[in-house]
Amino acid sequence: MKKVAICGGSGYTGIELIRILSRHPKVELTAITSEKSAGKKLSGIFPHLRSCKDIAYEPLNRKKLLGEADIFFLALPHGASQEAVNFFFRNGKKVIDLSADYRLRDPKTYETWYGLSHDFVPSLRKAVYGLPEIYRKKIAKAALVANPGCYPTSAILGLLPALKAKAVETASIVIDSKSGASGAGRKADVAVSFCEVNEGFKAYGIGTHRHTPEIEQELSSLAGREITVNFTPHLLPVDRGILTTIYARMTKKIGTKEMLNLYRRRYSGEPFVRIHDEEVFPNLKNVRGTNVCEIGLKVNTRTNTLIIVSAIDNLVKGASGQAVQNMNIMMGFPEEEGLEKISLYP
Amino acid sequence: MKKVAICGGSGYTGIELIRILSRHPKVELTAITSEKSAGKKLSGIFPHLRSCKDIAYEPLNRKKLLGEADIFFLALPHGASQEAVNFFFRNGKKVIDLSADYRLRDPKTYETWYGLSHDFVPSLRKAVYGLPEIYRKKIAKAALVANPGCYPTSAILGLLPALKAKAVETASIVIDSKSGASGAGRKADVAVSFCEVNEGFKAYGIGTHRHTPEIEQELSSLAGREITVNFTPHLLPVDRGILTTIYARMTKKIGTKEMLNLYRRRYSGEPFVRIHDEEVFPNLKNVRGTNVCEIGLKVNTRTNTLIIVSAIDNLVKGASGQAVQNMNIMMGFPEEEGLEKISLYP
Amino acid sequence: MKKVAICGGSGYTGIELIRILSRHPKVELTAITSEKSAGKKLSGIFPHLRSCKDIAYEPLNRKKLLGEADIFFLALPHGASQEAVNFFFRNGKKVIDLSADYRLRDPKTYETWYGLSHDFVPSLRKAVYGLPEIYRKKIAKAALVANPGCYPTSAILGLLPALKAKAVETASIVIDSKSGASGAGRKADVAVSFCEVNEGFKAYGIGTHRHTPEIEQELSSLAGREITVNFTPHLLPVDRGILTTIYARMTKKIGTKEMLNLYRRRYSGEPFVRIHDEEVFPNLKNVRGTNVCEIGLKVNTRTNTLIIVSAIDNLVKGASGQAVQNMNIMMGFPEEEGLEKISLYP
Amino acid sequence: MKKVAICGGSGYTGIELIRILSRHPKVELTAITSEKSAGKKLSGIFPHLRSCKDIAYEPLNRKKLLGEADIFFLALPHGASQEAVNFFFRNGKKVIDLSADYRLRDPKTYETWYGLSHDFVPSLRKAVYGLPEIYRKKIAKAALVANPGCYPTSAILGLLPALKAKAVETASIVIDSKSGASGAGRKADVAVSFCEVNEGFKAYGIGTHRHTPEIEQELSSLAGREITVNFTPHLLPVDRGILTTIYARMTKKIGTKEMLNLYRRRYSGEPFVRIHDEEVFPNLKNVRGTNVCEIGLKVNTRTNTLIIVSAIDNLVKGASGQAVQNMNIMMGFPEEEGLEKISLYP
Repeated sequence: MKKVAICGGSGYTGIELIRILSRHPKVELTAITSEKSAGKKLSGIFPHLRSCKDIAYEPLNRKKLLGEADIFFLALPHGASQEAVNFFFRNGKKVIDLSADYRLRDPKTYETWYGLSHDFVPSLRKAVYGLPEIYRKKIAKAALVANPGCYPTSAILGLLPALKAKAVETASIVIDSKSGASGAGRKADVAVSFCEVNEGFKAYGIGTHRHTPEIEQELSSLAGREITVNFTPHLLPVDRGILTTIYARMTKKIGTKEMLNLYRRRYSGEPFVRIHDEEVFPNLKNVRGTNVCEIGLKVNTRTNTLIIVSAIDNLVKGASGQAVQNMNIMMGFPEEEGLEKISLYP
Repeated sequence: MKKVAICGGSGYTGIELIRILSRHPKVELTAITSEKSAGKKLSGIFPHLRSCKDIAYEPLNRKKLLGEADIFFLALPHGASQEAVNFFFRNGKKVIDLSADYRLRDPKTYETWYGLSHDFVPSLRKAVYGLPEIYRKKIAKAALVANPGCYPTSAILGLLPALKAKAVETASIVIDSKSGASGAGRKADVAVSFCEVNEGFKAYGIGTHRHTPEIEQELSSLAGREITVNFTPHLLPVDRGILTTIYARMTKKIGTKEMLNLYRRRYSGEPFVRIHDEEVFPNLKNVRGTNVCEIGLKVNTRTNTLIIVSAIDNLVKGASGQAVQNMNIMMGFPEEEGLEKISLYP
Repeated sequence: MKKVAICGGSGYTGIELIRILSRHPKVELTAITSEKSAGKKLSGIFPHLRSCKDIAYEPLNRKKLLGEADIFFLALPHGASQEAVNFFFRNGKKVIDLSADYRLRDPKTYETWYGLSHDFVPSLRKAVYGLPEIYRKKIAKAALVANPGCYPTSAILGLLPALKAKAVETASIVIDSKSGASGAGRKADVAVSFCEVNEGFKAYGIGTHRHTPEIEQELSSLAGREITVNFTPHLLPVDRGILTTIYARMTKKIGTKEMLNLYRRRYSGEPFVRIHDEEVFPNLKNVRGTNVCEIGLKVNTRTNTLIIVSAIDNLVKGASGQAVQNMNIMMGFPEEEGLEKISLYP
Repeated sequence: MKKVAICGGSGYTGIELIRILSRHPKVELTAITSEKSAGKKLSGIFPHLRSCKDIAYEPLNRKKLLGEADIFFLALPHGASQEAVNFFFRNGKKVIDLSADYRLRDPKTYETWYGLSHDFVPSLRKAVYGLPEIYRKKIAKAALVANPGCYPTSAILGLLPALKAKAVETASIVIDSKSGASGAGRKADVAVSFCEVNEGFKAYGIGTHRHTPEIEQELSSLAGREITVNFTPHLLPVDRGILTTIYARMTKKIGTKEMLNLYRRRYSGEPFVRIHDEEVFPNLKNVRGTNVCEIGLKVNTRTNTLIIVSAIDNLVKGASGQAVQNMNIMMGFPEEEGLEKISLYP
């Protein structure tokens, strides 16, 4: 049994990690931190976790924690993660960072979009972007994994096979994403209160959302050239899930069937990617609670455009589930351990 | 007081017409038809309409109805509307058709997308497309108005000023729409049952939705050249509302502020179009129950793309409200009569 | 045109007052106060109110306000309302207080349940409890009206005819209420955030909710003897509405039909109370946005119990709509002016 | 590995059985029946089950099925279950019936409430009511278990300790229940369509719901005397969950703390019942997807009434989860096998 600590364990990604790890047979949760909730027992704040081991939140004391775990998940706000990640990594621990701090390979891009300098560039250079469908082999050898953002996971998995095959133009790609409210985090804010979100729907951060450079970094790497994209996130009145609709102009005449086969080949053997049949498209409801990414697509021959729809649970494949998948790969555990494929439906 | 009849009065657009007309001081509802509910009183099926005049549903007997009303709203399924519209129109009545039967000017396009021949082409030629923001003058003189579809209303109003000003390319326009469940109509169907829609989100009809040719007809007319678009509708877990996110490449360097001014100028004097300030975008919640179309936009200078977001209530500006607006224009009533601008919020 | 000011105009009841008053032909809104939003324009915070007169929030400066309005609505937190109400009332204004400060006739009861002493008992003695179905005549002559709480409105209207007729026992009445989330107010609080409320349901304040003494005061007055009740509020994942299910043991053998007739007689002529037919029961959806209270009932002969279900919109008949109804009565306006009877459905 | 068949596998309880059994290490699903979906593969109708063994639906051919399974779950409509249950039971199979057909011990009561005669009374006499918290020992020896209804499970578990201890009066018990929409089943029906249920709330079946005699049977058995109850179900706009609020007059002076201890003692050792601390009450959200029943309670000393709140997931502890718990007990498997205790939250 490996020992696991979670730094920043009182947000939605933190408690989702606890939920997933509690059914994982090869690890034991030994510490969870939260400045606000320090001293309080897990079950006191989250009654739904009463059947878990009932440990108490503690403040993030890095030195103390060092002795208490082999694997560190960090679910801290960006910026706050930089130093803690560096510390545990430099002290020989396996680190999976769920913040954005180690995702962008170029520290200047990080500075531009996050308004912060990166103070640990040598560690940043060692970080592996934790999307197993692209970097599985590197992840297996890594000690520091930057867990991808939720929107980027849905966008990159949706475009990967088409870009790799040079089947679509790299200019004017449109990524129109819709996310459930848990993506905004667990917080006291009128803007995420029930009466503001329920029966509503809106776009936000148009052209400015911080997941943009992360998406562009990985798509550029796949395409072998610089790509800028139109990425628009929207807020859905559901708890969980991201559905992303992607538009890219075709470079060649390929039909829907052939394109589906291209996708199936690329993802064959992937335990958590499911390609739909022709004329079947993903529904958030079918991935809720699972680590699965569902993909459907269609070639619109009238407009010569490939339209891809991908769906994930933003808290699972978009965050904590993918983090556990990365841990499994890093530690040599079976990759599917602790992770769910059947959604809670309805 | 003018007399009004509604043919097809038991669906969501039908009862929304009743709600709106019941507060209209210049008309009186004299007949409502429904084959299924014939003989039943309005209040027996729809308790929320108990304070309306409690007339009974009757079968659609065209000859009998002729003597009972001056103005006919038809909220029948497409196909079923063709003959009835023609009949009332040819008998000198004012007709507002909420079906798709008289929207497409080219009967061949209608046949291609709806799988039906159009048997009343001479009447079709007399029909005016009922989008007041484009065709107000023609509507004022018309006896037959084809009330626009919900998705087309949101898409066309969103693109109108930019296309007219030739500020955007006409190729590769992306129209990504999200509609509340009332858009599917009032029906017994597992696919629209609560447990299937709630906490879900999905795309449907990708590349094949029948509102596509209607959007293309009007955009082509605005641009002065043939346009094909990528139009993808999605199903939102809310009762009402359509939010459409539109992407079009810019032809010239225009900033967001200037583009907003272009929109404000074009829509100045429009009672039901509201242009947001910079960095403010529409929310479905702010138009619910109103006849307002809200529009926000942004020029993404990194990708040279104009991103427009428009929002309407699909049952009001997207159907019954716009129908009443058309009636007001046709009859010389004040255009805003009976129509709401303040949403029920929250 | 009478001039109206709203003190505390940035909460849900405040903006609902603005919505309703903006369609009222006999009044003009001249001032709205909010400490937090002082200086900001109404439309800047609430885009859905853009078509209203766009006045700015100001701090609650009592002396300044005195010259600006004839009628004062106070939608302040309890405690905060005491002094302001007294001030406007003592200076000859018509005052409608939406807080709880002037509802409980006995200042000791107020102290017990609200933990505050009442510092304006002489004014409290002049206050009329603003439930028109009981106190219409007194309201017509009053200058100070204490607008009822949302739960009490639904409970009292539900029990009134049965208690008056001494048809039910006064011991062991059960009042099980379910309220939409807007009842909790517009605030930054994790407990009312979307992800906590959506797909959830819970009871709260069992045996301790502050609406209990208000319900008991009015039921005792109706019954002519002291009544204590079991009142349990619950939080529903909807924006608006309160549905209350009431259980009271019958004192005599009366059938459902006869009991319904009793209710119909008592409420005949009431513009905003609707009694359903046998085996038809209220649905929140049918009263949303309206000032209507719907009531359905059944005598369970197996258990000798009367079961009453009442439904209101908590922000309308349960708050701002009833406040306007009271204003109409106080000012001699038509009682229904500005108030809606047809719900926004679906 | 034991072989399992599900008769009636295309409704919500059927597919929930498939979800739960698919993670159960000691059984294998060998057959699922559905008349409507016969011939179709599981994954074709339910994409979320794509990672399950992809068997096809078949018609319910009793003789054929006999050779294909050791354990039979029947999720058929009441009435339809009678004969099939009898057949499999008489042929030596272990049978768990999720319909109401074998729950009521008195066939006359069954006839009164369900309008059907019971044609297999000898089998009915052998059936054990499958509430493990009462009948665990009998279930362990049974070959035919009548799985309890969802509402009865929440009501009986809520009242059990208080009734057993004779702490509450047996007259005038009020059981006010609120259920998510999946309780209505998977069906094409306007009444359960999204737009009718969403943002709505209503009571139904007041005094006539068929779960009433089932609740009364078990409460009477616990109390040792005939009990009739006031049971009112309501429809909640959520997918899953039942929350029941119960009111019973106290027979003795017992405080909340003492009563909580009474409940804790009675349920000590129960793997799926959780008693909350004082002033903590259940929330549907904390039991979703789990087999847990949460209970909170309070003694209202002002009214001398015990108020109990219980919450379950109607599809798990209220149906398919409890059915698997019963199977585990019948087969000597570990009782918690395959069943979840941590909810999907948020």
